[in-house]
Amino acid sequence: MATNFPLNRKLRMALVGGGQGAFIGRVHATAAVLDNRAALVAGCLSSDAARAKASAPDYDIPENRAYTSITELVQKEKALPADQRVDFVSVATPNHTHFEIAKTAAEAGLNVICDKPMTFDLKQAEELAEVVSKSGVVFAVSHNYTGYPMVRQVREMILAGELGEINAIRSNYIQGWLRTRLESSDQKQAAWRTDPKKSGAAGCFGDIATHAYNLGRYMTGLLPSEISCHLKTFEQGRALDDYGTALIKFENGAFGCVTASQISHGRENDLFIEIDGTKGAIQWRQEDPNTLVFRQNGQPHKLYTRNGGPYIGSLSAASCRLPSGHPEAFFEAFANVYRSAYDNMILRAEGKPFEKVDTIYPNVNDGVEGMYFIQQAVESSKQGGTWLPLKHPLARR
Amino acid sequence: MATNFPLNRKLRMALVGGGQGAFIGRVHATAAVLDNRAALVAGCLSSDAARAKASAPDYDIPENRAYTSITELVQKEKALPADQRVDFVSVATPNHTHFEIAKTAAEAGLNVICDKPMTFDLKQAEELAEVVSKSGVVFAVSHNYTGYPMVRQVREMILAGELGEINAIRSNYIQGWLRTRLESSDQKQAAWRTDPKKSGAAGCFGDIATHAYNLGRYMTGLLPSEISCHLKTFEQGRALDDYGTALIKFENGAFGCVTASQISHGRENDLFIEIDGTKGAIQWRQEDPNTLVFRQNGQPHKLYTRNGGPYIGSLSAASCRLPSGHPEAFFEAFANVYRSAYDNMILRAEGKPFEKVDTIYPNVNDGVEGMYFIQQAVESSKQGGTWLPLKHPLARR
Amino acid sequence: MATNFPLNRKLRMALVGGGQGAFIGRVHATAAVLDNRAALVAGCLSSDAARAKASAPDYDIPENRAYTSITELVQKEKALPADQRVDFVSVATPNHTHFEIAKTAAEAGLNVICDKPMTFDLKQAEELAEVVSKSGVVFAVSHNYTGYPMVRQVREMILAGELGEINAIRSNYIQGWLRTRLESSDQKQAAWRTDPKKSGAAGCFGDIATHAYNLGRYMTGLLPSEISCHLKTFEQGRALDDYGTALIKFENGAFGCVTASQISHGRENDLFIEIDGTKGAIQWRQEDPNTLVFRQNGQPHKLYTRNGGPYIGSLSAASCRLPSGHPEAFFEAFANVYRSAYDNMILRAEGKPFEKVDTIYPNVNDGVEGMYFIQQAVESSKQGGTWLPLKHPLARR
Amino acid sequence: MATNFPLNRKLRMALVGGGQGAFIGRVHATAAVLDNRAALVAGCLSSDAARAKASAPDYDIPENRAYTSITELVQKEKALPADQRVDFVSVATPNHTHFEIAKTAAEAGLNVICDKPMTFDLKQAEELAEVVSKSGVVFAVSHNYTGYPMVRQVREMILAGELGEINAIRSNYIQGWLRTRLESSDQKQAAWRTDPKKSGAAGCFGDIATHAYNLGRYMTGLLPSEISCHLKTFEQGRALDDYGTALIKFENGAFGCVTASQISHGRENDLFIEIDGTKGAIQWRQEDPNTLVFRQNGQPHKLYTRNGGPYIGSLSAASCRLPSGHPEAFFEAFANVYRSAYDNMILRAEGKPFEKVDTIYPNVNDGVEGMYFIQQAVESSKQGGTWLPLKHPLARR
Repeated sequence: MATNFPLNRKLRMALVGGGQGAFIGRVHATAAVLDNRAALVAGCLSSDAARAKASAPDYDIPENRAYTSITELVQKEKALPADQRVDFVSVATPNHTHFEIAKTAAEAGLNVICDKPMTFDLKQAEELAEVVSKSGVVFAVSHNYTGYPMVRQVREMILAGELGEINAIRSNYIQGWLRTRLESSDQKQAAWRTDPKKSGAAGCFGDIATHAYNLGRYMTGLLPSEISCHLKTFEQGRALDDYGTALIKFENGAFGCVTASQISHGRENDLFIEIDGTKGAIQWRQEDPNTLVFRQNGQPHKLYTRNGGPYIGSLSAASCRLPSGHPEAFFEAFANVYRSAYDNMILRAEGKPFEKVDTIYPNVNDGVEGMYFIQQAVESSKQGGTWLPLKHPLARR
Repeated sequence: MATNFPLNRKLRMALVGGGQGAFIGRVHATAAVLDNRAALVAGCLSSDAARAKASAPDYDIPENRAYTSITELVQKEKALPADQRVDFVSVATPNHTHFEIAKTAAEAGLNVICDKPMTFDLKQAEELAEVVSKSGVVFAVSHNYTGYPMVRQVREMILAGELGEINAIRSNYIQGWLRTRLESSDQKQAAWRTDPKKSGAAGCFGDIATHAYNLGRYMTGLLPSEISCHLKTFEQGRALDDYGTALIKFENGAFGCVTASQISHGRENDLFIEIDGTKGAIQWRQEDPNTLVFRQNGQPHKLYTRNGGPYIGSLSAASCRLPSGHPEAFFEAFANVYRSAYDNMILRAEGKPFEKVDTIYPNVNDGVEGMYFIQQAVESSKQGGTWLPLKHPLARR
Repeated sequence: MATNFPLNRKLRMALVGGGQGAFIGRVHATAAVLDNRAALVAGCLSSDAARAKASAPDYDIPENRAYTSITELVQKEKALPADQRVDFVSVATPNHTHFEIAKTAAEAGLNVICDKPMTFDLKQAEELAEVVSKSGVVFAVSHNYTGYPMVRQVREMILAGELGEINAIRSNYIQGWLRTRLESSDQKQAAWRTDPKKSGAAGCFGDIATHAYNLGRYMTGLLPSEISCHLKTFEQGRALDDYGTALIKFENGAFGCVTASQISHGRENDLFIEIDGTKGAIQWRQEDPNTLVFRQNGQPHKLYTRNGGPYIGSLSAASCRLPSGHPEAFFEAFANVYRSAYDNMILRAEGKPFEKVDTIYPNVNDGVEGMYFIQQAVESSKQGGTWLPLKHPLARR
Repeated sequence: MATNFPLNRKLRMALVGGGQGAFIGRVHATAAVLDNRAALVAGCLSSDAARAKASAPDYDIPENRAYTSITELVQKEKALPADQRVDFVSVATPNHTHFEIAKTAAEAGLNVICDKPMTFDLKQAEELAEVVSKSGVVFAVSHNYTGYPMVRQVREMILAGELGEINAIRSNYIQGWLRTRLESSDQKQAAWRTDPKKSGAAGCFGDIATHAYNLGRYMTGLLPSEISCHLKTFEQGRALDDYGTALIKFENGAFGCVTASQISHGRENDLFIEIDGTKGAIQWRQEDPNTLVFRQNGQPHKLYTRNGGPYIGSLSAASCRLPSGHPEAFFEAFANVYRSAYDNMILRAEGKPFEKVDTIYPNVNDGVEGMYFIQQAVESSKQGGTWLPLKHPLARR
C-alpha cells in the first residue's frame, strides 16, 4: 500500500448486493458518499449475473466493473493499478452470504464494511475475525445506530463517568411489519429474513435484537457475563422467532433486558434504550434521534439536542453536519459509521497504526459478539431460559 | 342491613391510617368524597393514640369517633344506630398491618377499601379472602391505576376483541426516589417501605411491580401460568429489592415482561404499558394518563383522548367528570375505584346481589393474586429465576 | 364578623347555578371542597324555581337552603346566626347574570367566587369592582388556569427575574367543539355561549381568549398598553365570533399575540403559552399541565415537573397535593384558586388585613381587566384592527 | 440543447458560494447529489478569488473549473462542449448577490437553484422572473421545507379536499441564536444576516418568516389578499428586525398569522404550522418532520408517519427513500426540492414541455412572492400595521 496517501483522496468503494428489490444496498451506497469522501466505482450487485449487470447503471458503475461474483471482483480489482483499485467492499447481501464475501475481500487486503448480523453463525464470525486480524484490513459492521450523534453523546458521557456506575440497561426494538406471514407473499425482504437457511439461527433476534443489545454495549462499554433468553414465534408456520426477551447479567453487577418484536401492530423501527447509573440516567429513541433525555434526581429533566451547545461532547459534535434544530437522521448516522471507518482506512493506506478494538465504529469483534449473542440467545431459549455465558474472548473492552 | 337504602344517601367512611407524615391516607380521604357520595365520619388515624387523636381535626373527624385501634373502632361503631354507623373502612397503613385491620372490619360486616399490597404475605391474603367471602362485604384493593378512564378504555377494547388475541404485555414501573439510601435518613415513607418487617418479602416489587403486573391483568383478563423473576438491590445495605424484572407466561401463550425500578435517576411514577394483539396494539403511560395510543398496521397511529368522542367505550366515558382536553388525573382515578365500589356497597345495603369476582374495581381476589405474584417473584428470584406457577385458584376470570 | 375564627373552621359555601345540564357548577362544587376546607350548605341552583329545588339533593343541599333567587338567598342567609350563615357565594351561571348575583352577594358582605367573564360588559364590571371595594369582601374570578402549579411556577420565576426582561408572549386557546352550529341543536352550553344576549359582546374571545390573555398577564405581571384585534365568524349564521387574533403592546415594549379558536377540528382545550425573556424562555400547555419547558441558549432544554424538586418555587410547591409523577390536573388547579381565596376569607373573618390587588388568585380587578380586554378587542375588530388602549386603571401592578 | 437526453445521465452542477465558514453551500452540495442524479463539477465558491480557488478541493472541483466570478463561470462553461457543460447553477451566497448571479446564469440558459430570499428586493425579483420566463430555464428557490414528505402530504390532502375549505393558518418560525448581538462578534452568519446592505429590508422576517409564510401557501394554495405586520428589534443596536408577527387575509376569507423570532432562548429551528379546515385540521413541526397530526372532531387524533402506509399520498410516498420508522430529515427534504427540479431539467433538456408555475418545487414566482411578502411586511410595519395588498400578479394559482 502506498504510504503517501493524499489527504483529500476519495476512497473507492465496491458494493456487493443492492440489486433490485434490495433496501439496504442503496442505503450503503448513499451513506458511503454523503460526505464526498468516497466514490462507488465497482460492484457485484446481485448473485444473479444478469441482474448484477442490469443494476450497475443505477449506481453509475461502469459495465467493466460490474462483477458477478466476489471472486471475480477481487481478481479483477487486484489486477488494476493501485490508484484505481477499490479501497473497500461494502457487503449488503442476505446474512448467509456475508462470510464468504467478507473473507474473500479481507484476504485480498480490501477493507470491508459488512452488514449485521456479520455472518451466518459464530464459527464463521470467529474465523472471519482471524482473517481480519491477519490481513490487517479495516473492518466495520453496520450497527448503524451507533452513528447517531446522540448515541455517541451517551457513550462519551458514560465513559467520562457522568452517569456513575451503570446498574441497568433496558433496550427494546419493536417493529410490526411481520405481524402477518408476509413471507408467504412475494415480499423479498420478509422471505429471506424469516428463512433459517438465509437468516441464521434467529429471526427477529438476529435481525433487530442484536441492534438493541449492541446499542447498550456501545454506549456503556459494560462487559456481559450471562444471558437468559426466551424466543417466541407468534405467527403460525413461521420458521424463526418473531418476538423475544433476553435478560443479561453484566460483569459489574448491572442487569439488562432486551426485547425485540416484529409483531407489534403499527410499530415501525422503535429502537429505545434507557440506562440507569448511580449518578444519572438517560433515555434515547431512534425514531426521534436528535434528542436525548438526561435525568438526575432533584434536577429538571434535561433534554439534550444534537449539536445543541457546549454541553455536547466532542465526538458527538463532530458527528453532526447541521446546526441543532435542523434534524439529521438515518442516512447521516449510517454515514457516520462509514466516516469513522474511513479515518482508519486512510491511516492504514498511509501505513500508520490505527485502533482496531476500541474503535468508534462497530468492528469485527463486535460482529463476533453479535453472533455469540444470537447463538447463546437461541440456545438459552431452547433450554427454557437457562443462563449461559455471554462474554466472548473477543468482546471489546 | 336495611334494604330501603335511599339512592342519594351518602356512605359513611372510617379511615385507618393517614396521620401526620402519611401520604396515601390523605389521598384516600380526598378520593373517597370527590363525588360527594361519601363522608368521612370516623377514623383511627395512627397506631399512636395521641397522634390518632391529634390528627382527627385535620379530617373533621369528631373527637368521639377518633379511635385508637381497629378493635375500638369496630366495637364503638357497631354500637351506633345503623343510620350513623360507618359503611366502610379504608385501610391506608403500612403493609404489615393491613391484614388485622381489614379482617376485623370485614368480620364486623363493614365494607373495606384496602391499600395494596393487600397483606403482609400470601397466607394472610388467602385467609382474608375467606373472611370476605363469608362476610359478604364489598372489598376493594387500591390498585388505583385501574381507575383511569383510559385504562378502562383498554380493558373494554380488549374484552370486546378489538386487539384480537393478545400476544405480549410489556409493563414497567420506573421510579428514582430510592436511588440513595433515603431510609437511613428520617424519611418515613422510605423507612417502612424498605423494611422487610413492615413491607413484606419484597420492596420495589411489592410496592410498584404489583401495580405494573395488575395493570396488564386488568386490561387483558389473560390468566398467567408461570413466572420467572430476578430481583436486585443496587443500593448497598438496603434490605429489600430496589429493582427487578419478571417474565410471565400466560395460559394463552402470551408472553409478559414486568420491570420495576426505584433507582432510576429523575424518574417519578413512570408506569408504562404496551400490549400487542393480533389485530392491534396499545400503549399507555400513567404520567400522561389522558391519552392512549392505538395502532394497527397500515393505518395512522391513533391517539385516543379521555372522553374524546364516540370511539370511547361506555365504562371509560362513565369514568370521566370533565370534557376532553380538561385533564383529569390521579385523584380522579383513585375516586373511580371508590365510586365503583360504592355501587356495590349500595347494592349490598339494599340487599341486592352484586358481582364479586369480575368487578370493575380490584377486589380481594386481585389482592390475593398480588400477594401470590410477590411470593412467587421473590421465590423465583431466590432460585435464580426458576419458572414457578403463577395462576392462583382465586385469580379472576 | 367574628374575629376569633378557628383555624380549622370550614367555610360555608352557597352555589349559584349548577343545575341539570350545567358543567361548570359541578366543577365549582367539587373544587371548593377538595381540601376539606369548605362545605356546600346552600344554593340557588337554577333560575327555574322547580329545577332549583329539584337539583338541591344532587349537592346535599337541604331543602330549606335551596333558594330560588339570589335575593332570597341573601335575605335568608343573613337571617341565620353567624356561625351557620354562608361565608361565600360561588357564581356559576351564564355570563349575563353574573353581575346582579355577585353585586347582591358582595353588598350583603358575602365573599364571592365568580365565573369569568366576570360580567356582561365593562360598565357592570367597574361598578362591581366599586361594590367589592366598599364592601371589603374577598372576590375571586375563576381564571382557573392560574391555579396550576406550573403556571404559578412561571409567575414565580418571572417575578424573580429568572427570565430577565420579557420581550414576547404568545398564547393560544384552541378548541374545536363549535366547528358546527351546535347552538342550533339542543346543546345548552353552545346555545348560551353563542348568544350575544347571554354571552356578551364576544363569543370565542370572551369565553377563551380571555383565559389566554389573563394567563400571560398573570405569569408576567406586564402591563398592557394597546390592543389590535381581528375577530372572525367562520360558521355561517353564528351571532358571535368563533375565531380571532389579538396583538398586544405592553408598556415595557414587549409584544404579545393571543389567538383563540373554537373551530379547529379535534382540538380540545389547548391553552398554550410561550414567553420569551432576555435570560430565558418558557413554554406551557394546559393539556399537559404537569410539565413546563424552560430554555436558555447553550444549555439543555429543561423540563420542570410539578413538585419535581428543589428547583420548584415555594408557591408552586405549596400548590401541589401529590408527589411528582402522580399527575394533578384541572380540578386541583381550580381548587387552588379556591384555596388561595380561602386564605384571605379567613383573614377577613378574623378581622385581619389582606392583600386585595396583587393576590395569588385572580380578583375583581382582573375581572374588570378581562371585560376591558373583551370590549377593546371587539371594538378594535369592528374598526378593522385599530390600535386601542388596553391598560385599565384598575389593572393590577 | 440536445433532445436525446439519456435517462440516467447525471446532471452537472456548479455551486456559487459555499466557501469556508459558509453553512448552506455544503447543504446544497450534499443534497444535490444525494440521489446520485447530479455531480458537482464546477464552482465559484467565494467572492474572494484566493478563497474560491482554495475551497475547490473541498468539493472535488478541478482547479480549471474553480471560477472566481459568475461571469467567468458562464463564459468558460459555455465554451465547453454540451456534454461537459454544467446544467445548472446553485446559488448559495448572501442575499444581496443572488440577483446578479441568478440572472447571469439564467440568461446564459443555465438552470438555477437559488437560495431564498431570492433577491435583495422586489424589483430585482420581478426582473429575474422575466429573465427566467424569457430564457425558459428551470428555476427553483430553496424553500427547502417544502421538500419534506409530510409537508407534501398536507399539500396533497388539502388539494384533494380532505380538510374542506381552509379557514385558518397559523405558522411560526422560532429561533434563539440572535438573542445576543452575535453580529458584533466575529460570527459570519450573524454578520451578513443582520446587515441591511446584505440581507435586504428585513432581518428575521426575510430569513425565516418567509419560510413560515411560504409553507402555508405551499400547503394550501390559498391566495393572499392583504397583510398587516409588526416588526420588532429587541436586541439594542441591531439594524434589522429580530421578531415580528404578520396577519394575513386570504381571498377565500381565511385568516393567517405568521410569527418569526430569533430571540427566543433555546429555540432552534422551530418551524411549526397548524391549518384549520371545515373538514379537518393538521399540525406539523419541522423539528419532528416525520410525523403529522390530522384531526377531525369526534375521531381519535391521527398521527400520520412518513411512508407509513396506504394513507400516504403518492407524491409524499415518492418523496421518501426509507421505510417508515427510519427517520429522514433536513438533507433529504432539501434533496427532494432538487429532485423535483431535476425532473423538469431533464424534460427541458429533452425539449419537452414542463410545468412552470404550479411546480412541486418552489419556483421563481414563489421567489417573487416571497420578496413581495418581505416588502409589504416591512412597509406595513413602518405604517404601524396598516393593511397592505399581498397578492402579487405572479403568485401561483
